[in-house]
Amino acid sequence: MTKTPGDMNDAERDARHAEKMRKHKAAHDKKMASKTIEKGLLIVHTGKGKGKSTAAFGMVFRSLGHGHRVGVVQFVKGKIDTGERLALDRFSDLVTLKRMGEGFTWETQDRQRDIAAARKAWEAAKDMIRSGDYRLVMCDELNIVLRYDYIPVEEVIEFLKTEKPDDVHVVITGRNAKEGLIEIADLVTEMTQIKHPFRDGVKAQQGIEF
Amino acid sequence: MTKTPGDMNDAERDARHAEKMRKHKAAHDKKMASKTIEKGLLIVHTGKGKGKSTAAFGMVFRSLGHGHRVGVVQFVKGKIDTGERLALDRFSDLVTLKRMGEGFTWETQDRQRDIAAARKAWEAAKDMIRSGDYRLVMCDELNIVLRYDYIPVEEVIEFLKTEKPDDVHVVITGRNAKEGLIEIADLVTEMTQIKHPFRDGVKAQQGIEF
Repeated sequence: MTKTPGDMNDAERDARHAEKMRKHKAAHDKKMASKTIEKGLLIVHTGKGKGKSTAAFGMVFRSLGHGHRVGVVQFVKGKIDTGERLALDRFSDLVTLKRMGEGFTWETQDRQRDIAAARKAWEAAKDMIRSGDYRLVMCDELNIVLRYDYIPVEEVIEFLKTEKPDDVHVVITGRNAKEGLIEIADLVTEMTQIKHPFRDGVKAQQGIEF
Repeated sequence: MTKTPGDMNDAERDARHAEKMRKHKAAHDKKMASKTIEKGLLIVHTGKGKGKSTAAFGMVFRSLGHGHRVGVVQFVKGKIDTGERLALDRFSDLVTLKRMGEGFTWETQDRQRDIAAARKAWEAAKDMIRSGDYRLVMCDELNIVLRYDYIPVEEVIEFLKTEKPDDVHVVITGRNAKEGLIEIADLVTEMTQIKHPFRDGVKAQQGIEF
C-alpha cells in the first residue's frame, strides 16, 4: 500500500520530494531544450490591473543592465512617471526617452490636438523601431491611443509585420489592447486587479504609483 | 433628436468628446481628492503570467529613481536575473540585494537544504523590513517558498501585521499566492498569461526573460 504524505516521516517525505523534483527537472530541461528560436518579440501588457507599464519598465531596465540600447516612447504624458524617468537618467548612455503625449485625454479635452500628438509619437516610435539601433522599443500606453482610434490599429499592425527588424523587441502597454494586435503578438500578459488600495482611501504614493 | 456619432461632422464629434472628457476629469479629480491616506503598502504580484518579478523590479527602479533606499531578497536563486542585477549595479549607493535561495526546488532536489535556505532568506527579509532603513523591500518569489510550506504563511502574516513599520512598502512575488496573504494585502495584481512565445519554440532571450 502506498503511504500518503501524512503517514510519512521526514526522511520519506524528503525522498518523495527529491524523486518528484527530479521528474520535474527532467521535464523542464526537455521542454527548454526544444526552444531554439531567437527573435525580436512583440509583447503586449494589457488589462485593468496595475503593473503594465511597470513591468515594461522592468524589461527596459533588464535590457539596459545587459548594455542594450533601449528606446521609450510615451504616448500619454499626463501620466505621473517621475521615478522611472529619474532612474533612466543613470542610463543616459543607453536610453532614448521621448515623452510625446499631451496628457490624458480627459485632461486636455481637445481631440484634434490629441490626435496630432498621437500621430507624432507614433512617427517617433516607427523611426526608433525601423532604425534597428535599439534592441527594445517600449510604446507606453499606445493601446490607449489605439482604443480611441487616434491611430488606426491596422496601420500599427501593418508596420509591425512588415517593417520591424527581426532582432528588435517591441513592448506595447495600456488597457483594452485591440484584438488584432493581440493576434500578431508573441507574448501577451493581462494584468488583473484583485485588490487596490485606492478603494480604501489610500492616495497615490511616490515610488508606488509614480 | 440626438445625433449619433455617425451622423456628426468632425467639429460636432470634437465638441461631444470635449464634454465627455470634461465629465471624466471632474469625476476623476473628485475621486482622487478623496484619497488622503499615505502608508506603506503590502503588494502581491501573483498569477501564472509573466511580469510578476519584472513589475516588482520596475517598482524597485522607480523607487530608486526617487532616491529611496530599497532592499531586495531573492528567495529562489536559480532564476535567471542577470539583467536586473547588472542594472541595480548603477544604484549600489541605494540598493541592498540579497540572493539567498538555493535554486528552483526541482534543480536541487534536496528539501531540507531548501527549507534552511528559505528560512535564512526570510530572516534577512525580516531584518530589512524591521530596520526601517528601506522604503521598499522586495521579497522575490517568496510565494514559492510559502506554497511548499517551507515557511508557514501564518508566520509571515503575523510578522507583516505586527512588525512592518507603517512607512515601509513590501512587495511579494510568485505564483500561487496563499489566500491569507492576499487577505491582508493592500494591492494584489494577478498576471494572466494570454500568449507565450515558448509555445512556438522561441527560447528564453537576454533582456526579455533574464
